[in-house]
Amino acid sequence: MTAPARRGVFITFEGIDGSGKSTQARALAERLGAALTREPGGSEGAEEIRRLLVEGEAARWSAETEILLFTAARRDHLEKTILPALERGAVIVSDRFADSTRVYQGAARAALREKVDLLHAAMIGLEPDLTFVIDTDPDVALRRGLARHSGEDRFESLGAAFQHRLRTGFLALAREYPQRVRLIAGDRAPDDIASDIATQAQAFLAGRAHG
Amino acid sequence: MTAPARRGVFITFEGIDGSGKSTQARALAERLGAALTREPGGSEGAEEIRRLLVEGEAARWSAETEILLFTAARRDHLEKTILPALERGAVIVSDRFADSTRVYQGAARAALREKVDLLHAAMIGLEPDLTFVIDTDPDVALRRGLARHSGEDRFESLGAAFQHRLRTGFLALAREYPQRVRLIAGDRAPDDIASDIATQAQAFLAGRAHG
Repeated sequence: MTAPARRGVFITFEGIDGSGKSTQARALAERLGAALTREPGGSEGAEEIRRLLVEGEAARWSAETEILLFTAARRDHLEKTILPALERGAVIVSDRFADSTRVYQGAARAALREKVDLLHAAMIGLEPDLTFVIDTDPDVALRRGLARHSGEDRFESLGAAFQHRLRTGFLALAREYPQRVRLIAGDRAPDDIASDIATQAQAFLAGRAHG
Repeated sequence: MTAPARRGVFITFEGIDGSGKSTQARALAERLGAALTREPGGSEGAEEIRRLLVEGEAARWSAETEILLFTAARRDHLEKTILPALERGAVIVSDRFADSTRVYQGAARAALREKVDLLHAAMIGLEPDLTFVIDTDPDVALRRGLARHSGEDRFESLGAAFQHRLRTGFLALAREYPQRVRLIAGDRAPDDIASDIATQAQAFLAGRAHG
């Protein structure tokens, strides 16, 4: 598990709710003919854990319990969906992955980041090959996110100040992992953003093919 | 969380399914006027996680995902039920706790014990004051367990050979934690077992009160 066969390529999208990352993940997967998945969820068991995480009151779980549930869902997603795709040589695109847990829990309480890292190292041990962080003004993103009324609004209900801390967290993530994280300006027309991402992804894939 | 105020006393019951530990946990709680709880479960959120763990096919979750789900449920149980009871000075009796995860996962694959211990240290950090392991012949216990038809038979469906490994695991646990674990012969009349346990628990509580 810690050193899986990786003939495929694992690409993730990250950003705050309403940043447009789900739209962009779908657009890139279509353009590349890649598998598309998401977190929390992405496998039958992980989708069941997702319901515990995204529905209900914000105070339903402590940050510590939340980290454990996210890591449980991620482990199932990894085993059932991501590793099988990588082993058969596919490109797989995920709407969120471990970076979301790093940023959300770190924004809630900085000391939690250590526990997130410990659990990731012990139970997941996989990083994406390439990550696009869609950077969007939190006030704009929050209005988009709330306008969806999906019923999955447990995190969005945390409010605007928290969304600003998340943005700061995603920007810090891009500095922490400069090799794999590409920061994408999200305040443009969706088609322009999609073209920008596709160009970068195709260049990355071409580089790997010839590397 | 790692050094909680502990004016109360935390007593756990462990053993294979069908060992009679649930009956004995209830009997001791009644006799002491103590709070009674159980794992997986024991709080609203943990009972929801319990349903993911005890229902469905044995192969539904990998051992690693299972460890994460058990630890998530335990963290919620700890925060919402166990620590509040200990902080108000109560005696609280739990039907299973972390020892079950140690023994069940260790019986599935010895190398998993390391991950169980790592998660316990990082996310739980509490051990019982006193643990009763009810030691019962696995063939007798298995017949009792299956006869209940509770629908919560995901672990019982693992079969007789696994139950024998579990017994070995619980006996090893008693040797590993000799200070807090009392091994109780389960092949006696339930009332005799209950009297034996009550005598030992009352002596322990008296020792603490005067200690």
